[in-house]
Formats: sequence, structure tokens, C-alpha cells
Amino acid sequence: MELKTIDWKDGKVVIIDQTKLPLAEEYLEFSDYRELLNAIKQLKIRGAPAIGIAGAYGVCLGANKLETRDYAEFKQQMNSIIDELAATRPTAVNLFWALHRMKAMIEADSGITPDQIKPKLVEAAARILNEDRTTCQLMGEKGASLLKDGDTVLTHCNAGALATGGIGTALGVIFTAVKQGKKIKVYADETRPLLQGARLTTWELMKAGIDVTLICDNMAAWLMQQGQINCIMVGADRIAANGDVANKIGTYNLAVLAHYHKIPFYVVAPASTFDLTLKSGNEIPIEQRAPEEVTEGLGKRTAPPAVSVYNPAFDVTPNGLIHAIVCEQGVFIPPYQLQAIKI
Amino acid sequence: MELKTIDWKDGKVVIIDQTKLPLAEEYLEFSDYRELLNAIKQLKIRGAPAIGIAGAYGVCLGANKLETRDYAEFKQQMNSIIDELAATRPTAVNLFWALHRMKAMIEADSGITPDQIKPKLVEAAARILNEDRTTCQLMGEKGASLLKDGDTVLTHCNAGALATGGIGTALGVIFTAVKQGKKIKVYADETRPLLQGARLTTWELMKAGIDVTLICDNMAAWLMQQGQINCIMVGADRIAANGDVANKIGTYNLAVLAHYHKIPFYVVAPASTFDLTLKSGNEIPIEQRAPEEVTEGLGKRTAPPAVSVYNPAFDVTPNGLIHAIVCEQGVFIPPYQLQAIKI
Repeated sequence: MELKTIDWKDGKVVIIDQTKLPLAEEYLEFSDYRELLNAIKQLKIRGAPAIGIAGAYGVCLGANKLETRDYAEFKQQMNSIIDELAATRPTAVNLFWALHRMKAMIEADSGITPDQIKPKLVEAAARILNEDRTTCQLMGEKGASLLKDGDTVLTHCNAGALATGGIGTALGVIFTAVKQGKKIKVYADETRPLLQGARLTTWELMKAGIDVTLICDNMAAWLMQQGQINCIMVGADRIAANGDVANKIGTYNLAVLAHYHKIPFYVVAPASTFDLTLKSGNEIPIEQRAPEEVTEGLGKRTAPPAVSVYNPAFDVTPNGLIHAIVCEQGVFIPPYQLQAIKI
Repeated sequence: MELKTIDWKDGKVVIIDQTKLPLAEEYLEFSDYRELLNAIKQLKIRGAPAIGIAGAYGVCLGANKLETRDYAEFKQQMNSIIDELAATRPTAVNLFWALHRMKAMIEADSGITPDQIKPKLVEAAARILNEDRTTCQLMGEKGASLLKDGDTVLTHCNAGALATGGIGTALGVIFTAVKQGKKIKVYADETRPLLQGARLTTWELMKAGIDVTLICDNMAAWLMQQGQINCIMVGADRIAANGDVANKIGTYNLAVLAHYHKIPFYVVAPASTFDLTLKSGNEIPIEQRAPEEVTEGLGKRTAPPAVSVYNPAFDVTPNGLIHAIVCEQGVFIPPYQLQAIKI
């Protein structure tokens, strides 16, 4: 894929505006970390690994604006910037993972000046981006073994290049399987309320020449009942030590349906998505988002004024409904021994 | 409810335009059956019982435009009008049931002139409308026994006054339970692609002062997992002799989820929704609708041009997932002995 979801260019962060896709391919440039931070909140960049990369580059933007030459002051100001970046979105752990790496770097560099640290931070963020690219390739290769020639895969939300620094997580597996010569058909859940499936996943798959059909989320069960789906493959926003998976709202719905229809349910996510400090998915914080995403998500009000809305952005799928979790370090199957994963 | 979903006034059919709700309450008048027929196709009036009533009044509009005074010619022309009305929407059987009643009436009236038949047809259509009003009351009373004080009910699509000539099917049961003094909370699935839940169900329930919260279809499973739903109550478009139920796409999805979470799943529909000539739901024709409902359903394109779309308007829930079917003649529980129903 030529697609650059996020990049660093001449001291600026450049992202493709995912709220404008698929009708327009517009790029946004940020030199202020607060603007980037708002772009994360507004889902102009989204997808757990991509948010991690954006967070790391946000640290670089923040650092580059600081004028102090005093290390202690720099570190203090950077901590507050990192806290602001961490407060953008609570569920995907990759953001905290990336910020933690950047913070550890600043702490380790106590012997040098802020001006010496700044370019090192940019290098560190680039490393996170490049590692993610490699990680996607590895997940693709390992995960592709789960797909057979002729399979039809159902996916949810967008777990593609737009969600990562590389070819994607779940979609990366599909891209790799297709590259290996397997014929794969995809059904893409539109993924309400913000339609990442309709807007982003279909766009990526069509660009890659892969046979994709768009459905509304509530049509998945009917397709399964008719024997049209061979497996389900999704990404993840945070995976607990026991293998419970937080992912885009509607994922748990699919996992229950897959269980009932005896269809394998696979999760694909890099090691940076695992939060082994959490025993189970019950401890994962679930972001609640604005009612307007549901009532006006498509530019036109479609519900009565003042209607109550419940709009959780994620749900948690218990490990018992998951047949395999693919990360760059291997394909894990139940019972999940995830402590082996190096994060 | 003061709401008049459909009415006959001065030789015209008057309907509330359901595609404009909830932002505007606009009424449409039809004196030409072909305009009414298009309104049915465009879902300006929808809901299985309401489509039946509209079909009956469509027959009246068709008859009133005919100039022949010859019975045989009148009957022949009416048969062709009835065929046109029958071709609007294939799944809900109430339309065919109502048209069959009107056709039988014309056939029984072979001894009188077209001009004498015409007012009798209007009376017959009014009878269908009035019967539906009474039927809704009866379903409400019988079904309310299924709801306990304090229950939270999840419903899908719109099974309210807007879908019938009375207080509704599933919502009619809720209205009745609330009238009986029970405190009922409702979650309304938005019901993609055309958002009848977001636009119509929330509107009806808010008008009635009932606590309603709107969700996207893919959030239902997560609510169930958190123990927030006590039962599911939906309408139906066609019920086969074995109790298999065709209803708005997404209903089967909910039935599987309810089964997994051990939540009772109820269907509420008048006798006119039963098609006892069909052994099972496999024989029910499922309407496929235009891709644009999914890709541009809300006035703004939200998917790539030329994307493939699968857009079935209905699905079939097998009898084994249904805990009770309520009609005006009683509450049926498995094993379904539906041959007892008088249609």
C-alpha cells in the first residue's frame, strides 16, 4: 500500500484526514501538539496502533515548541504534555504504550540538554512507526495461515493500513493471504455510528482489488445463518492478560453470533495492544462518546431532539469466544498464555 | 395516541410521511392509487399492518378512477390494479391478506354495478383499519402480561402506531403495560439502514412519555452482557405455520443474542401477519432493496462509489429462538400450534 496514514515531514506531523474518506483524500499538517491531540479526539486519525504512533509524534511536536534549556524544567513540561496526549482516548492501550516509551526516553536522557533530546524523540517516534510497519507484515504472514483459499471473511470497523503504520492488523492478514494467491472475499460491517467499515475498510479493500461487499451491522447474523461466512477477523484496542479483547463496539455482537453459528472468530493485534497488567477485560475502561455521533453521525439529524442515547465506542469480547489471537510474535490459541508476549 | 398513520378523507388517502419524521410532521394526500403505491415502495408508509390498510385503500382509489359501468370489465381492471398494488413489497403478508379481502368482496358483488361496489370497498377498507385498531388493543392487553413492573425492553425497527392503524404491535404492548401502571424502560435499536428505530420508535415513545434510549444495532449485545435488558419485543412481517418469523433485518441477530444471554424474545403481530400456507420461514420471500439505502441512506454518501452492497430488508428468525408469539387471539408459546389462529 502506498497509503501514508501518518508521517513526519519537515518538523510536522502529516496525516490523512480519515473523517473525509472515502470521498476526499485530504492531508492535514500539524506543528502544534494540541491540534494533533484534537485530531485524535475527532477520529481524524484512529485505530489503536495509529493512535500510538500519533501520540509519539505528538510528544515530538510538544518538545519542539518548548524553549527551556533546563532538563528538569523540560522534563516537567513534557510530562504535562504527555498527560494531555494520554487524555485523548482511554481504551486503546497502544497510546499509553507509545507515550510510556517516549517518556522513558526523556527520563533516560537526563545527562543531555533538551535541544539534544528533541531529535532523539523524533527518531524514537520514527522507530515506533517503522516497527509497526514490520509488525504488520509479521502479523500478516502468521495470520494468513488461518485463511484458506476461497474463504469469505467478515470484518468489523477498520483494521487496515489506516489503523496502523503498515498494512494493517486484520486487513493486513487478508492482504497477505491474497498476495499468497488465496482467493478471499470480504464482507465489511459498516460499523455504526461512525461507519469506519463503510468509509475506510471498503475503500482500502477496493484499492487493493479485493472483492468486498458492504453490509449494515445488523445483517451479519443473517449472512452467517445462510452459510456465507467462513470466519471473522477483527483488530483490537486492548487485550487483557486472560485474552479478553476490547475492540470497536459491535465486536462482541459478532463474537456471540460466530459462536452460535460455529464460525471461527480471530483477533489480530500487535504486542503493543496487550495490557498484561489487567487480569481481565472487566478492567478495561470503555470510552463513551457524544450522542451526536448516533443522532447526527451522517450530517443530518435522524432522531428526535433531546433523545437519550447510549454510545459506548468499544465492547469487550471474553476470551472464551475467541479462537485465535494473532500478534507478530505468534498465533495464540486457548487457553491463552499471553504472559509469553514481549511488549 | 392521536396519531393518524393512515386515514380516508373526502375520497382521498391521507398518510403521515414517515420518511420526514421525526423532524417534520407532514401529511400526504393521494387520490391516485399509483401515487400511493409509490409511497408504499418508498416507505412513506411502512409496517406490515399499515401496509395492509394502505393496500386496501389503494384498491378504493383505483376503483374510484374507473369509469366503466360494466361489472366484468370493472372486475378485470380491478384485478390488474390489485396486482400492481401487490407488487410493491413482497415480504409482509398483511398486504396480500388485505388485497385478498378486497378482491373477494368485488367477486362476491357480481350482482351489483361498479358504482354500487365503490362505496362498499371504502367501507371494507375502513373495516380493515378499524379492526386493526381493535386488534392492537387486544394484543396490547394480552401481551402486557409478559412485562413486569420495572422491566427494560429492547425493541427493533418500529412496531408502533406508525406501523398499524392502532397503538402498534410490540410498542402497543409497552403502551398498555405502562397504562397498567408498570414502569417500563425501552432501548430502541436505531435499525439500519433506514433508521426506523431512531426516527420513529423514539419519537412515539417520547410522545407517550416513556423512558427510551437510542442505541446503534451493534450495541445490543453489549447491553445484554451487562444485564441491562429483561426481554426483547418486536413486530413481524410474516409468520409461517411453524412459528418462524420474518421481520426487519437485524431481528434474527437479536434473537441469537437473546438466546445466548438467556433473555426472552417475544414477537407481537396480528392474525393478518400469519401465513399458514407456508410450512416454514424458508418459504418467505425476502425483499432486497437498493444499495443506496446503505451508502446514502442519510442524505450523504458514506461509502466509495460502486462499492458492492448486500441489503436485505428482512430476515427470518426460527421458531426455536422465540419464547412467545402474541396475537389478538392469544399468547402462543412453543411448540407453536398456530393452525388454531383464525385469519
